[in-house]
Amino acid sequence: MSTIIEPKILKGFRDFLPATEIERKRVIRLLENTFEGYGFVPIDTPVLEYSEVLLGKGSGETDKQMYRFLDNGKRDVALRFDLTIPFARFMAKNRSQLYLPFKRYHINKVWRGENTQKGRYREFTQCDFDIVGTDCASADFEILMMMRRSLGALEVPGCTISLNHRGIFNRFLDVMGLKHQSEDILRTVDKLSKIGREEVFLQLSTVSDADKAGKILDFIQKEDSFTETLSKIESLAGGPAEDTLRLKEIYSYIQELGLEEAFELNPSITRGLDYYTGIVFETFLDDLPSIGSVCSGGRYNNLAGLYTKESLPGVGSSIGLDRLMAGLAELGRSTEKNSHTQLLILNMENSLVGYYHRLAEEFREAGFYCEVYHEPKKFAVQIKFAEAKGIPLVLICGSNEKEAGTVNLKNLKTRESFEGLIPEDALIKAGEIIV
Amino acid sequence: MSTIIEPKILKGFRDFLPATEIERKRVIRLLENTFEGYGFVPIDTPVLEYSEVLLGKGSGETDKQMYRFLDNGKRDVALRFDLTIPFARFMAKNRSQLYLPFKRYHINKVWRGENTQKGRYREFTQCDFDIVGTDCASADFEILMMMRRSLGALEVPGCTISLNHRGIFNRFLDVMGLKHQSEDILRTVDKLSKIGREEVFLQLSTVSDADKAGKILDFIQKEDSFTETLSKIESLAGGPAEDTLRLKEIYSYIQELGLEEAFELNPSITRGLDYYTGIVFETFLDDLPSIGSVCSGGRYNNLAGLYTKESLPGVGSSIGLDRLMAGLAELGRSTEKNSHTQLLILNMENSLVGYYHRLAEEFREAGFYCEVYHEPKKFAVQIKFAEAKGIPLVLICGSNEKEAGTVNLKNLKTRESFEGLIPEDALIKAGEIIV
Repeated sequence: MSTIIEPKILKGFRDFLPATEIERKRVIRLLENTFEGYGFVPIDTPVLEYSEVLLGKGSGETDKQMYRFLDNGKRDVALRFDLTIPFARFMAKNRSQLYLPFKRYHINKVWRGENTQKGRYREFTQCDFDIVGTDCASADFEILMMMRRSLGALEVPGCTISLNHRGIFNRFLDVMGLKHQSEDILRTVDKLSKIGREEVFLQLSTVSDADKAGKILDFIQKEDSFTETLSKIESLAGGPAEDTLRLKEIYSYIQELGLEEAFELNPSITRGLDYYTGIVFETFLDDLPSIGSVCSGGRYNNLAGLYTKESLPGVGSSIGLDRLMAGLAELGRSTEKNSHTQLLILNMENSLVGYYHRLAEEFREAGFYCEVYHEPKKFAVQIKFAEAKGIPLVLICGSNEKEAGTVNLKNLKTRESFEGLIPEDALIKAGEIIV
Repeated sequence: MSTIIEPKILKGFRDFLPATEIERKRVIRLLENTFEGYGFVPIDTPVLEYSEVLLGKGSGETDKQMYRFLDNGKRDVALRFDLTIPFARFMAKNRSQLYLPFKRYHINKVWRGENTQKGRYREFTQCDFDIVGTDCASADFEILMMMRRSLGALEVPGCTISLNHRGIFNRFLDVMGLKHQSEDILRTVDKLSKIGREEVFLQLSTVSDADKAGKILDFIQKEDSFTETLSKIESLAGGPAEDTLRLKEIYSYIQELGLEEAFELNPSITRGLDYYTGIVFETFLDDLPSIGSVCSGGRYNNLAGLYTKESLPGVGSSIGLDRLMAGLAELGRSTEKNSHTQLLILNMENSLVGYYHRLAEEFREAGFYCEVYHEPKKFAVQIKFAEAKGIPLVLICGSNEKEAGTVNLKNLKTRESFEGLIPEDALIKAGEIIV
């Protein structure tokens, strides 16, 4: 082959180099462990599905963004563009093998042929978790608490989960005689953090009138505490009902767990035109609100209505993993690790390679991440390799040391060296240096 | 919506239900931990690439199997059908950010529109690991040893890694004057385990003649030990050379590590027409040889020649994860787990739900996987839920217990109960039951 093919990748797609992929795996494992600690189970679904299944009711926008084509068998297929529709299809297809309530998590890639902007990709990772088959405050609360713990596990600094209930907003609009404008109003209110109060007021005024626009702005204004806000919106919505009772129940659990600081009731949270029917929530990073909500969701009254007659109410949330990881990086909260290797055994004499591999196995058995430098290259070359991989410790051993049963350990950060017997001294010293 | 869309999935594609996905994640984590222990780093690449990049030289077969289409921007794109070509493209594209030797692993899905047969899927998972940028016995050995440790970590029962060297076979064919028939001969020999000696003899006889066919059969017959086999093929191939020296070096490391039992030299292993130029290897399960090699690979002299002028020699291996997992299941060596949950807190009184969530947090903080039953359903319904998820232990607590600061723990396997104080007694007892 003499012609070289340009090794280019598609716009909106990325290679994940080791440091990024190590961090992604770290984050994903922390999330998985958290979810599993709450009884959530993992599932996976095909990347490719029948277009008919993915389109569902079909909105023009989704259709345009889908990677859709005819496969070699002339089937109309597409890459999944979210994890919600495949989950709905999954529940309908596998219902007989599943119990309720069913709590699943699903972390995987999805594809949308969107315009690529800063931080927007055509291939990106979603992390969804839902409880279906029950409609109760306990399930709502569990999703909220697990969100909180997930963000805690990732050491996300300063963030508050903003909670609201769609039902209260709807009742309020009803009281105001604005039921039929509710779509426009929800859409407008949803833009509050982006366009500001004044612009929202202007837009609401054209949908209704200035007086009502003012009342809506008053409604969506949060008060000093969860309970004060709840009292206000309950009263403006016509008094207590199931929706306010649900929020009170959830808040009583929040109090029981001492998590008041983590949550606020924010009546401006509507989740736009999404299919939610109960609680809705969003999470912004205090120091980086501009990147938008990193974790949001809500309660819906029927997950899989497109595919089955069984009604499956549920509550769920989604973490935008790429967005969250970009945020953590910007806040200096990512770990930057080029490898897991803790110890590199240098190749000082090629005739000792077998011995080096044996030493490496001893370190591995003692729990170390360890590798052998394969070729007898110059010392400086081997050290440069260690530095490129971020390996903190090298082991130096020639024939003399081998005969004496000793090794030299060198800490590449402090440049300190230590000579010790194999294995006891060396293992202890390596442990001290790495910790 | 009144019309129901049939929730069907594409032929050759699968949903992964919790038990399967839990097992997949378990296996993948064990592999990742093993790889990382040897200094291998993870990467990921786009699912979708330019068809031109994936096709490379392009063989008709691959082309037909590719999921290839024009995207909305009229780009000719395709789903990756293996992890090797994306890795080659990755190395060429990102070379300036990487050091050598580069040791990467990549575990992810690939797509081929093949005919679906028993155990063959159109969406399946590959697990590749390679060392590129060095050509030496130490790297060859590391791949072999890591394969062994990976299979050990998965508790794969009874398997042997069969090793060979392409160079020796090629020299032997040269000595025999069969250089120009080598493709046909390699392809035929590769079918030995499938079609048997007699059929291989017949086919070889038509490629050359009966006398030479007999000599080839003698060459590929393994002897009683690694060294005896090596002596024989070295002599038949015209004496010592770099290839036999390489095998001797590798075998000296195998001996140094005491791994003789794990490897055999098997001159019938050729890896067909693959692009290997050095050692080649395959792994069959002793009790299930019919499923084919579960882990195979070899050394190649140039990974990324299609995309860059830099020559990158390497050695690598691939675990067929679906095949291996099917094999483990058939041998009764998979774990069957419907969830990770260890403890279910029953909902005995709905007014105590907040307290139940608080108890659950205490158990989680102590390291337990724990969940709360959300609704105050009948006792039998809640127990059935625990059984469906394979939860071994339930916690029973009503108002009286709450006041007394006690709980009842019930072991669902033995049906034994235990009453204890919260948290000390309960945590200790729960730990005893779960272990």
